[in-house]
Amino acid sequence: MPNVEPCRLSAIEIVRRIEGGALTAEAVVRSCLERIAEREPVVRAWACLAGNAALAEARAFDRARKKALLSGVPFGLKDIFDAADMPATYGSPIYTGWRPPSDASAAALPKAAGAILLGKTITTEFANRHPGPTANPHNPAFTPGGSSSGSAAAVADFMVPLAIGTQTGGSVIRPAAYCGVVGFKPSFGLFPPAGMRINTETLDTVGIMARGVADIALFRAAMMAIPYDPPAMPQTPPHLGLCRGPHWDDARPEGRAVLEAAADRLAAAGAKVSDTIFPADCAHADEIQQTLGGFEGPRNHSPELYRHEALLSPPLREEKIARGRRLTLDQFRAAYRATEKARAAAREWARGFDAILTLPAPGQAPRGLASTGSAVFNAPWTQFAMPCLTLPAGEGPDGLPVGIQLVGRRHHDPVLLEVGLWVENRLGRGE
Amino acid sequence: MPNVEPCRLSAIEIVRRIEGGALTAEAVVRSCLERIAEREPVVRAWACLAGNAALAEARAFDRARKKALLSGVPFGLKDIFDAADMPATYGSPIYTGWRPPSDASAAALPKAAGAILLGKTITTEFANRHPGPTANPHNPAFTPGGSSSGSAAAVADFMVPLAIGTQTGGSVIRPAAYCGVVGFKPSFGLFPPAGMRINTETLDTVGIMARGVADIALFRAAMMAIPYDPPAMPQTPPHLGLCRGPHWDDARPEGRAVLEAAADRLAAAGAKVSDTIFPADCAHADEIQQTLGGFEGPRNHSPELYRHEALLSPPLREEKIARGRRLTLDQFRAAYRATEKARAAAREWARGFDAILTLPAPGQAPRGLASTGSAVFNAPWTQFAMPCLTLPAGEGPDGLPVGIQLVGRRHHDPVLLEVGLWVENRLGRGE
Repeated sequence: MPNVEPCRLSAIEIVRRIEGGALTAEAVVRSCLERIAEREPVVRAWACLAGNAALAEARAFDRARKKALLSGVPFGLKDIFDAADMPATYGSPIYTGWRPPSDASAAALPKAAGAILLGKTITTEFANRHPGPTANPHNPAFTPGGSSSGSAAAVADFMVPLAIGTQTGGSVIRPAAYCGVVGFKPSFGLFPPAGMRINTETLDTVGIMARGVADIALFRAAMMAIPYDPPAMPQTPPHLGLCRGPHWDDARPEGRAVLEAAADRLAAAGAKVSDTIFPADCAHADEIQQTLGGFEGPRNHSPELYRHEALLSPPLREEKIARGRRLTLDQFRAAYRATEKARAAAREWARGFDAILTLPAPGQAPRGLASTGSAVFNAPWTQFAMPCLTLPAGEGPDGLPVGIQLVGRRHHDPVLLEVGLWVENRLGRGE
Repeated sequence: MPNVEPCRLSAIEIVRRIEGGALTAEAVVRSCLERIAEREPVVRAWACLAGNAALAEARAFDRARKKALLSGVPFGLKDIFDAADMPATYGSPIYTGWRPPSDASAAALPKAAGAILLGKTITTEFANRHPGPTANPHNPAFTPGGSSSGSAAAVADFMVPLAIGTQTGGSVIRPAAYCGVVGFKPSFGLFPPAGMRINTETLDTVGIMARGVADIALFRAAMMAIPYDPPAMPQTPPHLGLCRGPHWDDARPEGRAVLEAAADRLAAAGAKVSDTIFPADCAHADEIQQTLGGFEGPRNHSPELYRHEALLSPPLREEKIARGRRLTLDQFRAAYRATEKARAAAREWARGFDAILTLPAPGQAPRGLASTGSAVFNAPWTQFAMPCLTLPAGEGPDGLPVGIQLVGRRHHDPVLLEVGLWVENRLGRGE
């Protein structure tokens, strides 16, 4: 790829070229900033940009020439996290002008691995449903999905090769699928949450996005401060559990078609594909999700609720918070126990496959920016604490990306990434 | 108690008198501030005090005469939480001068229930081991325990009737026991953590302190924004599981003597007391605790570690963080799985009793302020996610308080508080 603009390179390729002397971190940052300058008026992925600081950082990096896991790779951080020297709004007017004194772990760990923070990406209000201004880079008349809207749009639009999001329902996987990038939500409890605005303690999970599975694996090592062990292409084709899920009726025609076609192509490439359905103990995921989020939400958002209620969006106040206030502690405890049961049942279930193959969203991104789309294909996996990976796999009627989702066994994230590498390769995508 | 200074009243009595017109919130706050002015030079419980703001708040409350769960009750908040209009240091020089823009949920929820925040109480460095200046109010040559040092000392010394702490190992129960107050760590996942500086996501638990069990029950309802259901004195004496624990050899003579004497007195009062020991799946609690905290610690503290390493205390850097960096992901995953197994085993075990009776600490507070004491009697219960309650039950050789600890079934916190009420009554303490 000799003539490709640096902003279009993968993180792995950026690291390789910088370390080989073929590219400078400054040139990479400059290329990303040029792309952002060109596209941001339409895409609106950024809550704030720190272009000059990033360039200074890049020049310092080029002078020091320190070899690191993410040498000189630019990244974006969802504005639900704090970053030193940058404003933080959490997607709410309540925090206009607010500047935290320190980095979240999700900012500090990539920086420690040599990555350069370009800025904060747009989040929906407190990573809930009320959208920001971000548009889908494939067609700005369509939503990018949410709540990690800006991160997905920025990676898809070559503004930045890597970005960070969070998922309580479907907030990493769904926008990644709608924007046609690779999204990864690790097993619950593995990426450090310090400096993230809390939504639902029981479910909130930090996640990452890139344009290929190999980049996800590299980024993951930095996010966990663990040694980088590049995923190996599996020698034998995987056993996939094809799970259309309890919401198959909600899937759109293009979603169904892309999933079935992917299953057929992967089977033709040698994968064993077995139909599978949710175990009985996993059946009430939607109701449980609503109860956990509903009960915890108004309590974790009590600071805003009691001091700045008028600045919360009407949907957040009138739907989620009002619903949450009607829930009893007994209902919450029952949901908590049901979650533990569902996690155990899902763990046993997932043992039967190398990965579960399912949809990341009903289909292509919905038209308009008023809604970020439905999370019914995501909430169960988040609740089961399982690692999830979405890959682009086709197109919808409006030329927008349609993804598939692979789900792994809890705490077996490296296996999921290896299966993802194989699937990406056989579907003829990735970089 | 007609002539008692308001600062010595229980929260329940303060609410009763304010609502009955016998007392004003202003008089209560003033009394607490006078007590603090008198005692703070010795006890050093406060990281910051907001006396004038609290008085203004109290006068506004007295004018409005709004009936609320904690009408006009002053409280203290551990400086590991954010509070609007107050500095936050998290016990570290890194954050000197730092002022967060909003309340933690642990500040907002009591305020919403009518309570008045007097200030932030001293925490050890990031709620770890490196102590602040707080002394034990019973004798300033002894530690108050940690990490919620200031909260325990302030409640014990009649500076404030209620205070908030956090527990990752033993940071609520141990200081409460050392200072002779009632400490309560709820089941994991019930008090909202928003706005708390994270230590170990898997274990961090918000907790509360007061001078009696009834106050704990009242405060708990406010902290969870649930209807207040006063605990009823049990009609029949409880069945207690007397658990000397795997660390009985580490208990000091006064700790053993107070626990055995309490068991005898409660048995004489009608309780059924059965000896019990840890189930096999709960046996490795210490090792697991070290692994969870060790792995998560350096990752959650990465922002400070990478930008301000020289400002971290040598013990934090050289012990916890260095140890954590040597741990592998496989070790962490094994500890995580072992925790889930231990939680399930502990839940079954606890079914056999109305509460487990054990020690909250080896004995009285150790001499000196350099160490906050040992958490070996606390870490397992935190790890098992069970609700814990400590009550003062005797004295050590230096006249310092010695406590007992009651542990309940996870998510059966109200049962634990009712047993606590019975035990407190039979031991002839509480207010």
